[in-house]
Amino acid sequence: MLEKIEQANAKALQIINDAQPTLVDVKYAYEVFPGFDKKTILHAGPPIQWEDMCGPMKGAVLGAIRYEGLADTEEEAEKLVINGEIKFSPNHHWGAVGPMTGMTTYSMPVFVVKNEAFGNCTYCTINEGLGKVMRFGANNDEVIERLKWLERALAPALKKAIALAGGINLKVIAAQALTMGDEMHQRNVAASSLFLKTIIPYLIQVVEDGEQLLEITEFIAGNEQFFLNLAMAMGKATMDPAYNIPYSTVVTAMCRNGKNFGIRVSCTGDQWFEAPVEMPKGLYFPGFSAEDANPDMGDSAIVESFGLGGFCMATAPAVVRFVGAGTFQDAINYSKQMYEITVGKSTHYILPNLDFEGTPTGIDVIKVVDKGIAPVINTGIAHKEPGVGQVGAGVVNAPMGCFEKALVAIGEKLNL
Amino acid sequence: MLEKIEQANAKALQIINDAQPTLVDVKYAYEVFPGFDKKTILHAGPPIQWEDMCGPMKGAVLGAIRYEGLADTEEEAEKLVINGEIKFSPNHHWGAVGPMTGMTTYSMPVFVVKNEAFGNCTYCTINEGLGKVMRFGANNDEVIERLKWLERALAPALKKAIALAGGINLKVIAAQALTMGDEMHQRNVAASSLFLKTIIPYLIQVVEDGEQLLEITEFIAGNEQFFLNLAMAMGKATMDPAYNIPYSTVVTAMCRNGKNFGIRVSCTGDQWFEAPVEMPKGLYFPGFSAEDANPDMGDSAIVESFGLGGFCMATAPAVVRFVGAGTFQDAINYSKQMYEITVGKSTHYILPNLDFEGTPTGIDVIKVVDKGIAPVINTGIAHKEPGVGQVGAGVVNAPMGCFEKALVAIGEKLNL
Repeated sequence: MLEKIEQANAKALQIINDAQPTLVDVKYAYEVFPGFDKKTILHAGPPIQWEDMCGPMKGAVLGAIRYEGLADTEEEAEKLVINGEIKFSPNHHWGAVGPMTGMTTYSMPVFVVKNEAFGNCTYCTINEGLGKVMRFGANNDEVIERLKWLERALAPALKKAIALAGGINLKVIAAQALTMGDEMHQRNVAASSLFLKTIIPYLIQVVEDGEQLLEITEFIAGNEQFFLNLAMAMGKATMDPAYNIPYSTVVTAMCRNGKNFGIRVSCTGDQWFEAPVEMPKGLYFPGFSAEDANPDMGDSAIVESFGLGGFCMATAPAVVRFVGAGTFQDAINYSKQMYEITVGKSTHYILPNLDFEGTPTGIDVIKVVDKGIAPVINTGIAHKEPGVGQVGAGVVNAPMGCFEKALVAIGEKLNL
Repeated sequence: MLEKIEQANAKALQIINDAQPTLVDVKYAYEVFPGFDKKTILHAGPPIQWEDMCGPMKGAVLGAIRYEGLADTEEEAEKLVINGEIKFSPNHHWGAVGPMTGMTTYSMPVFVVKNEAFGNCTYCTINEGLGKVMRFGANNDEVIERLKWLERALAPALKKAIALAGGINLKVIAAQALTMGDEMHQRNVAASSLFLKTIIPYLIQVVEDGEQLLEITEFIAGNEQFFLNLAMAMGKATMDPAYNIPYSTVVTAMCRNGKNFGIRVSCTGDQWFEAPVEMPKGLYFPGFSAEDANPDMGDSAIVESFGLGGFCMATAPAVVRFVGAGTFQDAINYSKQMYEITVGKSTHYILPNLDFEGTPTGIDVIKVVDKGIAPVINTGIAHKEPGVGQVGAGVVNAPMGCFEKALVAIGEKLNL
């Protein structure tokens, strides 16, 4: 049996390594989700209902309802929710991912990332920038106006530019950015710069109005986390073909809804294994402290699910100063520890600081439980109250409970 | 006396650390060099005459004469040189620097980099790209046409963009790029991307013609070494205020003309101390080998003179694979060794991989000779024949003879 599991996990690793995530389009959510409607709101993490949502997710939901024009005020929006008119569903149930609160609604534009090696597509919204943004629970008029600009100005331009480029190979950008100090979760400055460098010649050709070209360029150039949402879509596009491999104990997704952390495992398909989320340890922006922090949240742990983020901290020592993770040696140690719980190494995502070893890839539920080492995740930290936004960044562990529950289910399924 | 030297070297280090190199303009060489004429050609390294020049420098000179319209063919150009109509002079004698052959002629546009802390300006041509380019000794029509395009299209656009930006702070870009795996001599991919990100909004505003904007954007985006020439001008702008500090034994410039390596030292002002250049050890492009290599050449060792390049290899482990310098640990060791021969550390250029220490800064002639450790330099490698171009990249040491000669001269000057 162990041999069967090993073979299945090797197959999963091969599938992950063979992925060719490519940005092929920008479309509206209503175009890509069959049967989607304005009153359905997609959120980060495993399933959750309004009553259980944390402050920033509630804030984001009320903002999203206003963004869709279903209500003029926050009070009206809340009334719609309480009257049961709004349906909630996880991004992952629609082939999508979203950072932090992870709001994806009907009119929002989404990146379409296709895994060219396997043909599957995944979706993620466009990164809004830092600070007071909907993914961190902010929901004022400025937040909503920015989202409308993404929808009406940025998305059509990106769509045309990507088409003219014939798609953009994200794996090449990510691999290069890893040699430039990005870990692709809390540090995307290299990847975002490389993405701008790649797309700008096409934007120049498709955006005729000079003012608009300038606005779009400044928006992308001004957001060092612009690539995060692309890295997330890459992650889901990379992992989706590794679902449902009989006997494979590789984790295919990790995500959090602000209350519970959920994981999925290859051989158990779409089943969620959940446990309460932990509090990140990190550094706070001026004026904020750990008291303001919301617990761990977002689909962005998909980045760690395919070996980046906290798993490749060794390549991004500069990030330890942003997430408060210690010294250079700590960064090295985080990555080294993750080799203990993974099936193997990436063949494309390389860490120069570990003598060009591939990143630790393919989290094995058995190894996690056996060694008692939980996956490490680099994360942004939202204010716990609705409407505020990001207050810091830090490091958090996936709760061991998810992996223990998964192992029980695997045992039952495999008659162990 | 040793105390006086220590104090003087501390002052030199302070001056280097206080530098604020800023890109303030692009002008033509004839605008910035008083008394310059079309028949004067500036070259890399200490003074050298035609008879002593290596193959690629001769090739570049003949190309430069054609570029200036003084001759139609290579034969005519060579006749002008042999008849003594062309004067040769080092870039350093005109406040300038140039990579590899370092050609700077009358009509060429130069970056104007001002050290805002001290008011001095330095100049460097615009990087032409990789491969068959004049700085590596190539000189065919394609090379000359590209230089004409730099002169007529790129330079005026950059000039306007820099003016609109109100100058561009290069120190900020360089400091960030060092946390992104650039060592700023053989690896400038981060700095070049950050520079593009910084200047593109201004280029969009000043270049009205869409075709031209595209051409300019693709040229900058397509050259990962674009920032090298800016780093070199930064280096000279940073070091020039450290000349002529009585008692200071800090090296203010290192450069090579393909035959001799020359250094200048603070307390001895403009005097050159020379020794034959060494051969780089490196990796060669497909089809070339060490047999094709020209000895060490270029003013680009100004980058090491202010603590970057080979001195900060620790931050750029990815470069060891390009220059053939070994493993991650070798990269760390190169930087650690350079602390042995420097006065102190940079306060702005930081190496995350050495736990955020500053780069080794301020080469002390006394320490170099005393410890027998020669400065390490990352370098491009030109083909030894004229007209070919770049064949590889590698690592080379400054020859100890320069430092020994300098130490003798310092001893005489200070009556030691």
